[in-house]
Amino acid sequence: MTIHKFAIADAPLERSPGQVGDIFVGNVLDQRHGGPVTIGFGRYGPSQILEETMAVHDTMVILEGKITVADDQGSVTAGPGEVIAMQKGDKVTIRSHEDGAVTAYVTYPHWQEPDA
Amino acid sequence: MTIHKFAIADAPLERSPGQVGDIFVGNVLDQRHGGPVTIGFGRYGPSQILEETMAVHDTMVILEGKITVADDQGSVTAGPGEVIAMQKGDKVTIRSHEDGAVTAYVTYPHWQEPDA
Repeated sequence: MTIHKFAIADAPLERSPGQVGDIFVGNVLDQRHGGPVTIGFGRYGPSQILEETMAVHDTMVILEGKITVADDQGSVTAGPGEVIAMQKGDKVTIRSHEDGAVTAYVTYPHWQEPDA
Repeated sequence: MTIHKFAIADAPLERSPGQVGDIFVGNVLDQRHGGPVTIGFGRYGPSQILEETMAVHDTMVILEGKITVADDQGSVTAGPGEVIAMQKGDKVTIRSHEDGAVTAYVTYPHWQEPDA
């Protein structure tokens, strides 16, 4: 069976590489499974800030709280049930608000093997 | 700016090809935008059933209600904040429950150009 169901409890949440804040991410489906996309969950503490240059295309679905993503052109803020899409190469600042946030994400290609 | 924010109100919901039930889907980001994935939203009425063979990899995030996906090996049921992943080639039956459902989806490649 190649149909999978995932909840955040299935995600081995850990700090993403290079950041020391209260932001934890965990993949539930990735390069180990042979498909084209990585699926995972993220948990952001209150008022966290993450700056990065996107190595992959990343679709983030906000499940709880709010996330703001800014680049040098402007910013967007999304809440529960809304989606933020970032493209490979985007230089972004990702920020949670006072209540933190929970997200699900889908990346193409796999963010742990961006050049594979 | 290539950062996008989407809500279900942004999706031009219409019946997906070949089905006549109370299931409406609408893309918010797809082949017209030049990226690798299609992002969209779906709205299912109560107790709808959709049978299909997946032409693409499809990650579905349940935003409201519940969705059950079955194949000949078994089934999974997901509720708000949970994710169902289906792989290209899976023959599935997708079913909503008594309260209907709202979903966000990410497909790779674009489901409207599965062979492109």
